[in-house]
Amino acid sequence: MPDTDNTKIIDGRAIAKKVEAEVKADVEKLISEKGVTPGLSAILVGEDPASKMYVRLKHKACERVGIFAEDQHLPEDITQEELLEAISSLNARKDIHGILLQLPLPKHLNEQEAMNAIDPAKDADGFHPFNMGQLLIGIEGLVPCTPKGIIRALEEYGVEIQGKHAVIVGHSNVVGKPMAAMLVNRNATVSICHVFTEDVTKFTRDADILVVATGVKHLIKEDMVKEGSVIFDVGITEENGKVYGDVDFENVINKASRVTPVPGGVGPVTIATLMQHVLMSAQKTA
Amino acid sequence: MPDTDNTKIIDGRAIAKKVEAEVKADVEKLISEKGVTPGLSAILVGEDPASKMYVRLKHKACERVGIFAEDQHLPEDITQEELLEAISSLNARKDIHGILLQLPLPKHLNEQEAMNAIDPAKDADGFHPFNMGQLLIGIEGLVPCTPKGIIRALEEYGVEIQGKHAVIVGHSNVVGKPMAAMLVNRNATVSICHVFTEDVTKFTRDADILVVATGVKHLIKEDMVKEGSVIFDVGITEENGKVYGDVDFENVINKASRVTPVPGGVGPVTIATLMQHVLMSAQKTA
Repeated sequence: MPDTDNTKIIDGRAIAKKVEAEVKADVEKLISEKGVTPGLSAILVGEDPASKMYVRLKHKACERVGIFAEDQHLPEDITQEELLEAISSLNARKDIHGILLQLPLPKHLNEQEAMNAIDPAKDADGFHPFNMGQLLIGIEGLVPCTPKGIIRALEEYGVEIQGKHAVIVGHSNVVGKPMAAMLVNRNATVSICHVFTEDVTKFTRDADILVVATGVKHLIKEDMVKEGSVIFDVGITEENGKVYGDVDFENVINKASRVTPVPGGVGPVTIATLMQHVLMSAQKTA
Repeated sequence: MPDTDNTKIIDGRAIAKKVEAEVKADVEKLISEKGVTPGLSAILVGEDPASKMYVRLKHKACERVGIFAEDQHLPEDITQEELLEAISSLNARKDIHGILLQLPLPKHLNEQEAMNAIDPAKDADGFHPFNMGQLLIGIEGLVPCTPKGIIRALEEYGVEIQGKHAVIVGHSNVVGKPMAAMLVNRNATVSICHVFTEDVTKFTRDADILVVATGVKHLIKEDMVKEGSVIFDVGITEENGKVYGDVDFENVINKASRVTPVPGGVGPVTIATLMQHVLMSAQKTA
């Protein structure tokens, strides 16, 4: 990534733009050479406003890169059986290459069973156990989008991973655990911290690469980070219409060598990665 | 585990005996109540003496607990197609509940493809990507046997895991990575070190729980471990007919609170865990 403005910001929007341009070019190629238009179907259950907004953002990205996008907007009171049927019919559709199940689902539905029902080859979010297992053993195909986007950002800024100490704060299935697997696969020394860690600062202070995904507003301050470290902030906390990350950006920016802002950091790259996945799945069928 | 002899040894043979007694009782119950005898089939390709010995040890364990055991001893020059056919017919057999593919395979065969062909429900070794993925997201069914045995040993000796710093040296798919996942699932703070780690001692010295699986004879010495730590030695190096672990046992025993010996440490527990898996798979079909 060219650092033309000489800031220390990891510019997620610029990386996303670059990734989307690559996807767009390959989508055009796939259409002209094989007559295949990649297609994404997003399953949205109920009327959760945040979920609706996320699906809308993903659709807009599809439009930008030339991927066909549709919604399967299902009523709040759908049964598990009906949800599984909807997934099964998307699995069977030739024009749909990526399926995403917008989480969280209403509480009466079994999320894990629904995710397991998605064809692993169409698993745009990379959460299917088969894909997670491939990731753990070092075969990275469709993998969770946020950690994959962070790897791309590290590559874009030429940050060495092998032999470096990468510290992850937060051990979720969506970010922390797959992030750890990806960094271990690239021979980083990886420490995974979380709410049960006795002394998080001991770890974060030693981190060359720090990934924070806790949802605790401004958890990470200057005295908790290492001079010259590269920091990814996956957290989002909304307060009075403003969003805050897990990292106190203004506070750590002088000490770190690079930090993602919130917003404009990992979010856009995550969505661009999702576009990559739909393309990848479509390419495999073509 | 009762510490009757007041040593600091983690007695793998005693734990294995206890696990096998539990399995034996449940096997008898399954036979008498449901008429189902659990069955294990071990696929052995070629004549590697170490592989033959491992398969023999597993068969002996089956005999002890009442599990039916058979070999599929295939010739060294078998084709990939023939190997996949052998796996497919074991997948279909009602009397076989666990399948294990003894590794390594001859070089002309594709190990990963063969492992992926095993029905995840019969995956006695727990290496199938689906099972590894379930493990990563916290659903531990059939999982790699060595790390699962280490968890059992921690439980037997009443070692607290949550909030403790667990350090793993070695990032293999068979031990290091699944071990990390299991410890994270139990809310340990986990650090994964390996050959690319700049300063392994910095990590091992801070470890409350230390798992070493590198194959480097006596890598871990007294000055590298923490006072009162619990240490698992997964390494085996053979020299002139004697076996050595990755941990210099005599050297660390005064500082650690508990250490596995080699032999007689994690090895027997690994095999007992394999027996548990065959039983579990048989119970699900009954």
